[in-house]
Amino acid sequence: MPRGAKQRVKAALGPIVRQLLPRRAALEPAHWGLTVMPRGHLAFEGVSLAALREDWGSPLHVVLAERLRGNISEFLAINDAGRTRAEIYYSYKSNPIPGVLRFIHASGIGAEVISEYELWLALQLGVTPDRIVFNGPAKSVASVRDAVGRGIMLLNVNHREEIAVVESAARELCKRPRVGVRAAPSAGWSGQFGLPIGTGEAFAALKEVHESGVLELTALQCHVGGMVRCAHHVQGYVREVLALADRVKTELGVELAILDFGGSLATPTVAQIGELDRRLSITFQAPLPAPVPEATLPIREYVRCVVEQVEAHYAANARPCPRIFFEPGRAMTGNTQILVATVLSLKAGEPKPGWAILDAGINVAECARTEFHQIFPATRMHETRAHRYRLAGPICSPGDVLSWSACLPELAVGDALAIMDAGAYFVPFATSFSFPQPAVVMLEGAKVRLLRRAERFEDIVALDEMGEQYASN
Amino acid sequence: MPRGAKQRVKAALGPIVRQLLPRRAALEPAHWGLTVMPRGHLAFEGVSLAALREDWGSPLHVVLAERLRGNISEFLAINDAGRTRAEIYYSYKSNPIPGVLRFIHASGIGAEVISEYELWLALQLGVTPDRIVFNGPAKSVASVRDAVGRGIMLLNVNHREEIAVVESAARELCKRPRVGVRAAPSAGWSGQFGLPIGTGEAFAALKEVHESGVLELTALQCHVGGMVRCAHHVQGYVREVLALADRVKTELGVELAILDFGGSLATPTVAQIGELDRRLSITFQAPLPAPVPEATLPIREYVRCVVEQVEAHYAANARPCPRIFFEPGRAMTGNTQILVATVLSLKAGEPKPGWAILDAGINVAECARTEFHQIFPATRMHETRAHRYRLAGPICSPGDVLSWSACLPELAVGDALAIMDAGAYFVPFATSFSFPQPAVVMLEGAKVRLLRRAERFEDIVALDEMGEQYASN
Repeated sequence: MPRGAKQRVKAALGPIVRQLLPRRAALEPAHWGLTVMPRGHLAFEGVSLAALREDWGSPLHVVLAERLRGNISEFLAINDAGRTRAEIYYSYKSNPIPGVLRFIHASGIGAEVISEYELWLALQLGVTPDRIVFNGPAKSVASVRDAVGRGIMLLNVNHREEIAVVESAARELCKRPRVGVRAAPSAGWSGQFGLPIGTGEAFAALKEVHESGVLELTALQCHVGGMVRCAHHVQGYVREVLALADRVKTELGVELAILDFGGSLATPTVAQIGELDRRLSITFQAPLPAPVPEATLPIREYVRCVVEQVEAHYAANARPCPRIFFEPGRAMTGNTQILVATVLSLKAGEPKPGWAILDAGINVAECARTEFHQIFPATRMHETRAHRYRLAGPICSPGDVLSWSACLPELAVGDALAIMDAGAYFVPFATSFSFPQPAVVMLEGAKVRLLRRAERFEDIVALDEMGEQYASN
Repeated sequence: MPRGAKQRVKAALGPIVRQLLPRRAALEPAHWGLTVMPRGHLAFEGVSLAALREDWGSPLHVVLAERLRGNISEFLAINDAGRTRAEIYYSYKSNPIPGVLRFIHASGIGAEVISEYELWLALQLGVTPDRIVFNGPAKSVASVRDAVGRGIMLLNVNHREEIAVVESAARELCKRPRVGVRAAPSAGWSGQFGLPIGTGEAFAALKEVHESGVLELTALQCHVGGMVRCAHHVQGYVREVLALADRVKTELGVELAILDFGGSLATPTVAQIGELDRRLSITFQAPLPAPVPEATLPIREYVRCVVEQVEAHYAANARPCPRIFFEPGRAMTGNTQILVATVLSLKAGEPKPGWAILDAGINVAECARTEFHQIFPATRMHETRAHRYRLAGPICSPGDVLSWSACLPELAVGDALAIMDAGAYFVPFATSFSFPQPAVVMLEGAKVRLLRRAERFEDIVALDEMGEQYASN
């Protein structure tokens, strides 16, 4: 079929397809504690997000301090209940902005690091070694030595071959590091991460650590991976961890001091885009289904659910309850940051909906390619969202599309859009592809504080040899 | 089916599936002018790629000057033939390393830029405005003013709404800028890029530019997009461009001075990974099919094909042949750069093949997710590639896999791998996700020159407020 005919068929089918799809309640600003100002601006604590661009440029990351404080409190809530404490180590890779990390550490939360760089950063930020957990499949020999030398809280080996590296560092430095093993539960990620519980590989590694003689077998670590939303899912993987800890006790005579349940709790307002939804969205501009926030276990419940299950298990066996670690990433910061973008240009499109070209695309919001992120018209909140737009980023790549079907008011150049839940994986996946990276500010009450300044042109080539040798040829 | 059973079934089917697939000739180092040293190291002009890591660290981008010079010559070859010249503007976004750009400019090649930053960079590198073409859907108002004020060679409007922006800059600055229109051919990209020829939108925009009174209607620009490999494909889109240029002549009385054929020529040794191949590779570790390099039109042929067609068309109509522009990106630099990576760790896997954890993953080689890139065992070229590995990057993300089925010799920690054709889109899509970005060196004869030094930990947080305010709370 020639392109024109195909497009006409799609355009004709679009309204029918969109009509047939189940209606889903839109996510409202109140989910994020946002309000709408009289002139239609989206605001947090009385500050217009769009107006922040005047001082800090666009695009702009805005960290909402009050919301971050809220998530921190939720993670720590159980610690006021006089029961087993939840010990929290924030996943640096999710949002490695030093200002964000400092804020988190100020509440006594530790650092979960996965590289030599992140270990360095934690130490730079004043995190003491006893508040650092070192994970990941790619620890350099130098970083393992450094971690062992400093006596960090816990080093989780990702796979069996890593044990020898830690052992050798321990022997050389005459240290007895606390070591855990990353186990892969029967559902969830495996691949390069951890050792399957089911095949016995996780147990074998725990045994090897124990028998090394120089390593202190301390912990079992387990991530489900992906986005965990329900108690049932959580309980299933906790059960597997407990069973393995029991086996360690029975067969090795070791009572693991720490059970580390990793991360994986979902951000309630973010969801993976399913393949069908993606296709319907591209072909017929069907809106993506927004997740139902209430369907995700709240942070406090999630923590309680794990702690209760572990406590109950050990109480039933009359054994001392181990320390319980969590390593949240997206659940901690995901919904505490907003990426404010600006409409640079509009491009009419017939018969399909038109394009809004934004100053933020996959260069700074790569996650929006595969995840649903609510996008608000931050300067036109009072207007009916009766128009459909495709939202493209600026980088001249056909994949640079943030939405194929955004329902928005009629836009004008200069309008601001708020891309929600930009607090996990937006910053680490950001590139300087043809455009400098945005500033990051923190909004605390009505006070705005710069955490990271916007990249300048000079910064992008700061590491380059700019000499004249070739130009003068 | 439980995971264990599923894996056993896959493992049993794997050899059968791999046997059934058509055999494809492997790509050999000679395709890139590489040789193998007596001790089995992959080398260029007598220099071991793996050995470069000792001085410059790993991962490491190695630009092969001689190959880049070769591609430049191929693009310019027609200019020695006494016929219409090919004017080449290198696509900055494909590989924005200043040292690479300088090298290219030294041959008289111009700059194709798509952002305010790239325009700035071209000027910084000493490119004169008459050697700059400004494209893209996201030109800021300031950058349009700047470009118009400087009198750049050509500004191609991406969509109709941009015309007013250029017009306004022209009036304000009392300039008459040379303007082209980006047209979308009937096959290839459209979306946010350009105006369809078929619907008449491209012509309408050309007319609007012409009738503005202050803009010099100069050019028609057209990209096919994707990866063009055959003369037939090229001829089809050139034909569309010529037909539109004819219409401009007939209906507007304007002989376009420039036809700009954009980029899109494929790198012969790179191909998009098809969905089926991807699945067979993930599920059964079937090797990805390597492209047949000879199936891609060589650069020289591609240029000749376009120039001859244009010349013949104008000659047949007894009209003066317009200037012919090309804006190559991947065809120019794609196969002139190698990413050298190191095996950080090995992770056995039963029953599936094991993992090699590399210090380079999607953080620096994002393209390898969707494109076939040959990977050589740069320190074990003499050994039989009888082992199968999955190659993971370091960043603790399940998507960080560079290959699900690499056939390699048995690897050891510290081995080097050469990820080929890293010269287009590897650098611009690179992130500092948990790991600093690599150095870029240029190998010219036996001389190695640093183009961009490796990122240091301090560089990653150079724009951050590192103050103590929160740590002391």
